Amino acid sequence: MVDIIHRVGIKAPLARVYEAVATVKGVAGWWTEETSGESKLGGTVQVLFRSHGEEKGRMSFEVQKLSPNQEVHWRCTAGPAEWLGTDVTFSLSQQGDQTLILFGHKNWREPVEFMAHCSMKWATFLLSLRDLVETGTGKPAPHDLKIDDWN
Amino acid sequence: MVDIIHRVGIKAPLARVYEAVATVKGVAGWWTEETSGESKLGGTVQVLFRSHGEEKGRMSFEVQKLSPNQEVHWRCTAGPAEWLGTDVTFSLSQQGDQTLILFGHKNWREPVEFMAHCSMKWATFLLSLRDLVETGTGKPAPHDLKIDDWN
Repeated sequence: MVDIIHRVGIKAPLARVYEAVATVKGVAGWWTEETSGESKLGGTVQVLFRSHGEEKGRMSFEVQKLSPNQEVHWRCTAGPAEWLGTDVTFSLSQQGDQTLILFGHKNWREPVEFMAHCSMKWATFLLSLRDLVETGTGKPAPHDLKIDDWN
Repeated sequence: MVDIIHRVGIKAPLARVYEAVATVKGVAGWWTEETSGESKLGGTVQVLFRSHGEEKGRMSFEVQKLSPNQEVHWRCTAGPAEWLGTDVTFSLSQQGDQTLILFGHKNWREPVEFMAHCSMKWATFLLSLRDLVETGTGKPAPHDLKIDDWN
């Protein structure tokens, strides 16, 4: 099993960062505008990505953990084969004037090229999350930064 | 052993991307302005990072492989303890109008928080590399995007 891990700091209180990762409305502000479902323990959160109006990808996650101002943990239950069963985690902590996110997309079966693509995309989405919390405007899909021929 | 892997596409010919990763002048345009040494097989490339004029970090790499328009491989021979003995690799290929870079920073001993920081920083430096090649201007340190309390 192999993991993507990233670390980013956001100049905002823990509670505002937590809200942006723990709620459907929050996630829609930085990952993809087409985020739906119920972000409650045991609930399912769905995300849909389009390019030029055409569907490019769709994933579902079961919410495994919601610890206010501390941790959000999703498990992928539908989506690309490589994502099935993987875990997405956001661990929050305060450090000075920043809220730090230790992000993980864990338990990939192999370090495939698609994982390298996703690692890069996650980094840009975490910067989008920072922009959302610090300025009020993120870059969720379909306004996301394109990084390669896979988008 | 654990690895950071990223994938990025650059709208430019292979040769221009290769030059940006295989030469000291190229690396100084996207990673850190203070890049020195000799980028030849068996040579040593040194990079130095400052924040507000103060030295923040310094690493040396032995050039293990230089395959024109295909691959660059460095091994870290001096720097932070976590980096010693790790491998930095750039594998290039052409896909349509893009040169794809499959980037790796491999053989970390543990998936420590500093690795999560470096993963995020590498993503931003790869975007800086793309900017350098596509527009002529990258964001090498000290002009790099700050991502957390470690910079």
